[in-house]
Amino acid sequence: MSLSKKNAKISIVGAGPGAVDLITVRGLRALQSADVILYDALANPDLLLEASENALKIYVGKRAGNHRFSQEKINQLMVHAAFAHGHVVRLKGGDPFVFGRGHEEMEYAESFGIKVSIIPGISSSIAVPELQKVPLTRRGINESFWVLTATTKSGALSKDIAIAAQSSATMVILMGLRKLPEIVSLLKKIGKQETPVMIIENGSLPQERCVTGKVSTILAELVGNPLANPAIILVGKVVKLYPHFKANAVSILAKQSVSL
Amino acid sequence: MSLSKKNAKISIVGAGPGAVDLITVRGLRALQSADVILYDALANPDLLLEASENALKIYVGKRAGNHRFSQEKINQLMVHAAFAHGHVVRLKGGDPFVFGRGHEEMEYAESFGIKVSIIPGISSSIAVPELQKVPLTRRGINESFWVLTATTKSGALSKDIAIAAQSSATMVILMGLRKLPEIVSLLKKIGKQETPVMIIENGSLPQERCVTGKVSTILAELVGNPLANPAIILVGKVVKLYPHFKANAVSILAKQSVSL
Repeated sequence: MSLSKKNAKISIVGAGPGAVDLITVRGLRALQSADVILYDALANPDLLLEASENALKIYVGKRAGNHRFSQEKINQLMVHAAFAHGHVVRLKGGDPFVFGRGHEEMEYAESFGIKVSIIPGISSSIAVPELQKVPLTRRGINESFWVLTATTKSGALSKDIAIAAQSSATMVILMGLRKLPEIVSLLKKIGKQETPVMIIENGSLPQERCVTGKVSTILAELVGNPLANPAIILVGKVVKLYPHFKANAVSILAKQSVSL
Repeated sequence: MSLSKKNAKISIVGAGPGAVDLITVRGLRALQSADVILYDALANPDLLLEASENALKIYVGKRAGNHRFSQEKINQLMVHAAFAHGHVVRLKGGDPFVFGRGHEEMEYAESFGIKVSIIPGISSSIAVPELQKVPLTRRGINESFWVLTATTKSGALSKDIAIAAQSSATMVILMGLRKLPEIVSLLKKIGKQETPVMIIENGSLPQERCVTGKVSTILAELVGNPLANPAIILVGKVVKLYPHFKANAVSILAKQSVSL
């Protein structure tokens, strides 16, 4: 391996929520000029078709039993690849700075003197409801939205949920399906039984599915229609704007696949 | 004008935060196939160079003394243009469903039986700090972010700001510069004097400028360095990750302009 700082370069690129044509033009160009691509479980693998035939494409996702790549191993591989091959694109689902560890990867690479560019991606937190015609904000309904991850070790989640419940904010919970019973019980405790809830699985992809309900009914809805991650939980009045909203309803959305 | 529902079609497209290459591939393609483009003050006009020469391009922004176009007039124009010319692209800065009235425009158009597509855009709320290497979330620092508009329908400061300030969330306040003294006084009242603050003007554009400080110092910083909208106010510990962070500092960022 011939180490050279001169040509080493890393682009941390947001692939967007899933559909390939929701990547930015800047992101697509980075991909097309990459010597090495390290890609996630959440980034659509069809994007790799846009890369050069000669580019090395390495899957470093942690899902589906692939535990070879800890965060530390990904960091090391990224830096090694940049020194050995030149331009590395680190392709991440959604936006790399929204619960994406993109900032940690940037810091690690910069500590080796490597130039790092961050290329934003369409965040699922906003776009997945939007593609179902549900806005996170709507004049006359609410004045803010709050995006959180449910997988936290501390107790801050419950405290912040109680605070947010006093506001008009739409809550967007990422990767929260396993914690849903806990979240529902928290919301019930503060009197939000009637607040509409929507869960969207595989947002923006052909196999997308939605389940809607109220805080008091959503767990029962899921019994007959189990959803899995990647999924987004939306809590708030804007959910009623969903064209197929019912206090209990599932929409299996048959859509066409898109390619670039 | 020959009215025809058959070919009328509207795409509500997010142009992203400003730099032209931060539009999505899907958004760019809509633009390239548009018969009419209605564009905002916040969408980069260089994007119009991507449209067909024959496409009608109509500025409907409300800034810079252009008060010809109320929201109602924009809605009407959009529908008329779709019936008269076919594919209308409504190009909006940032993301159309984040405080963008995109949902209202969609509802209006759909009430005439027109098919409306929503094409998400990179939201300034996430990407503008990100392009300055500031993540809205960072493991070990915080677990959520909260996006707010400072100005409500009535012109009063949103009550959500006082509520959000009590949480551990990074606060992102859009279009809030005029309300900054009010916001600062609110944050001081709940003991947030030392919390880092960052204001970014013209994010992602060559003339971008940043001012950083603490809640207790930010107003004084702005006296010598007045910023104007479009600007984003960021409040939270993650601001300390800004590579040029100082409790009082201005960075005038000389950057190269990008074209598609």
